[in-house]
Amino acid sequence: MLDFTYAVSTKVLFGKNKIERLDQEVEKYARSILLVYGSESIKKSGLYTTVTSLLDKADIKYVELSKVPPNPRIENVREGIRLCKEQGLEFLLAVGGGSVIDCAKTIAAGLYFDGDPWEMFLHGDSVIKDALPIGTILTIAATGSEMNGNAVISNLSTEQKLAIHHDVLRPRFSILDPTYTFTVPPNQTAVGIVDIMSHVFEQYFSPTADAYVQDRLAEAMLKTCIYYGPLALKEPMNYEARAQLMWTSSLALNGLLGYGKVTDWATHGIEHAVSAAYDVTHGVGLAILTPWWMEYVLSNETVEKFATYGRNVWNLSEKNNQIAAKKAIGKTREFFKSLKMPTTLRDVGIKQEKLNSMAKQAVFLGNLGKVKKLGEQDILAILQNAF
Amino acid sequence: MLDFTYAVSTKVLFGKNKIERLDQEVEKYARSILLVYGSESIKKSGLYTTVTSLLDKADIKYVELSKVPPNPRIENVREGIRLCKEQGLEFLLAVGGGSVIDCAKTIAAGLYFDGDPWEMFLHGDSVIKDALPIGTILTIAATGSEMNGNAVISNLSTEQKLAIHHDVLRPRFSILDPTYTFTVPPNQTAVGIVDIMSHVFEQYFSPTADAYVQDRLAEAMLKTCIYYGPLALKEPMNYEARAQLMWTSSLALNGLLGYGKVTDWATHGIEHAVSAAYDVTHGVGLAILTPWWMEYVLSNETVEKFATYGRNVWNLSEKNNQIAAKKAIGKTREFFKSLKMPTTLRDVGIKQEKLNSMAKQAVFLGNLGKVKKLGEQDILAILQNAF
Repeated sequence: MLDFTYAVSTKVLFGKNKIERLDQEVEKYARSILLVYGSESIKKSGLYTTVTSLLDKADIKYVELSKVPPNPRIENVREGIRLCKEQGLEFLLAVGGGSVIDCAKTIAAGLYFDGDPWEMFLHGDSVIKDALPIGTILTIAATGSEMNGNAVISNLSTEQKLAIHHDVLRPRFSILDPTYTFTVPPNQTAVGIVDIMSHVFEQYFSPTADAYVQDRLAEAMLKTCIYYGPLALKEPMNYEARAQLMWTSSLALNGLLGYGKVTDWATHGIEHAVSAAYDVTHGVGLAILTPWWMEYVLSNETVEKFATYGRNVWNLSEKNNQIAAKKAIGKTREFFKSLKMPTTLRDVGIKQEKLNSMAKQAVFLGNLGKVKKLGEQDILAILQNAF
Repeated sequence: MLDFTYAVSTKVLFGKNKIERLDQEVEKYARSILLVYGSESIKKSGLYTTVTSLLDKADIKYVELSKVPPNPRIENVREGIRLCKEQGLEFLLAVGGGSVIDCAKTIAAGLYFDGDPWEMFLHGDSVIKDALPIGTILTIAATGSEMNGNAVISNLSTEQKLAIHHDVLRPRFSILDPTYTFTVPPNQTAVGIVDIMSHVFEQYFSPTADAYVQDRLAEAMLKTCIYYGPLALKEPMNYEARAQLMWTSSLALNGLLGYGKVTDWATHGIEHAVSAAYDVTHGVGLAILTPWWMEYVLSNETVEKFATYGRNVWNLSEKNNQIAAKKAIGKTREFFKSLKMPTTLRDVGIKQEKLNSMAKQAVFLGNLGKVKKLGEQDILAILQNAF
């Protein structure tokens, strides 16, 4: 086990009607807030009214930043910073999924950054010094952004999608009410399941051989996704299925699985290059790329881990490591297919002539991955296989 | 999944030489502290000198409360409170295992409690309003006290051993350096392993049927104890074995496994009655009682969970639930025996005529357990079986 510092400071209010404690939680930090949300769906569901009524009742001033898109843009961030500065706002409340939360986090950090916020993504996390406190009300189980300090933002003008990470970006509180995800449509539910599983894979597959408890915890979360994912699709209002996926999404990327080991993140790096160029939904990109990444990095060094994955997660009884590993990758592909995910880049309209520039963009900040270090040519090969 | 609030605020500094950050961490809270420790072993190991040198260098004033025994007494707490009040100390630093940490926590809360600190244990957790901040340097993997808000204290005059729980008692930071446990003798190492596993059992066996991810996480931790426990006994200086057990001890009782479900804690309740009367080591008492508790609560309602435990943790392939459940309990008993734990109360010198009063003491604050509610007669039956 490698050394680590564990500091997962987010308070999670989990369950039905936990929203009732919103005003109490916000009041600990601020009297005026930026309310960040995405599409009109929170208005249709009634959540918008619930939130604003609670804020009004507690006499908390709020200014709105709405229409934050999936794959949020640096322009949204700039607009949020402008609003906070103009109105002297003290807190950010994100109501939505990972995109909305990531946008709020970047605004929060950008307010303390001297320069255009995009520069934070180019200069590395050490330029982040502080951030306005944020809180979240989660409406989709996927990114885990509700309990961590990561944020991913797109810059369409440069065809880049990059990430920042800092403990000051961890939400102070997150309200997780599984009933808010009852109305998440099947495709987005599936995409969320893939996203959660991909976060686990990125940390599970690792050059750190000694990470026994972390690996068993990771398998526990994968099994939960495999068990409850199909159920949530079949019965969108099954509370338990929605609750298990929601809590697993938070646990999968709050630090628990990655502390004490080296983590990979190559598949995310490649996917970010793909979705920066095509605005493909993140989870769809991951569903396509993950099995191809697995096949590409399968080697004598990694075969045992893939076989363990097959035995512990997919209950394979196969004794031969090579066969077990290949079967495990096959099971992963089948499972994503059963969630109605596309299996090739061609399926989502990507053009072959774009692969070269995506590979180049993927290594913009250096080679990707730790299980196997991937240079531009490796990534191009994976993209071609996945085409 | 039941509703819950997750707020695990302790910062964990995990790894070799993390002690180097001690002064920085303390200085965030205080300039004068009560240094709480137990036996002379931290002096022999050199840890005492390391700690006091760091405090001296940073010019942090410290007053010592030493000789805190295993199963710490309310007298130790009273003494600590007196020292803090007299000297105006602002922080408690516990160097040791669960006993030392629990003593420090109770001092921390007692300073804000108007009355004798033992009354906190009799009146319930709601009387706890605040506490002095505390930090810990862990020297044995067992109780998980380093990452939670629980404290257990004995009152020999009333033959009682009772617990308090409050989020304000969570340590602000805990330094977990697995090398500090290299010198833990075999018996104490074994006792620690039993303690960790018992914490998992108390949360794993539950009337809450829907706790899938929590249950798989619990199995992950049990597997870790079963895998690394014997290795740590065989190779006391095996870093990975010590590290895995240390981190698992913290995770097993920081909230992760219990949030979202009802937890049992009957075995702990019975054991506290036993060790209040006989000063038996907590983990030894648990090792004796756990398999007997399992057998006593095995029923048509609980058989499936015990069978699942056998299949997922002990890799039993047995299809019949009754047989699998009984085998799983047998495996548990065998494992504790392999750690050289006694198997009966008689083995540790307990007299049969004491069982009645222990059973009465165990229900002092009400019936025990949730898997099966245990009254005085049930507990007496378990104690007689275990005799």
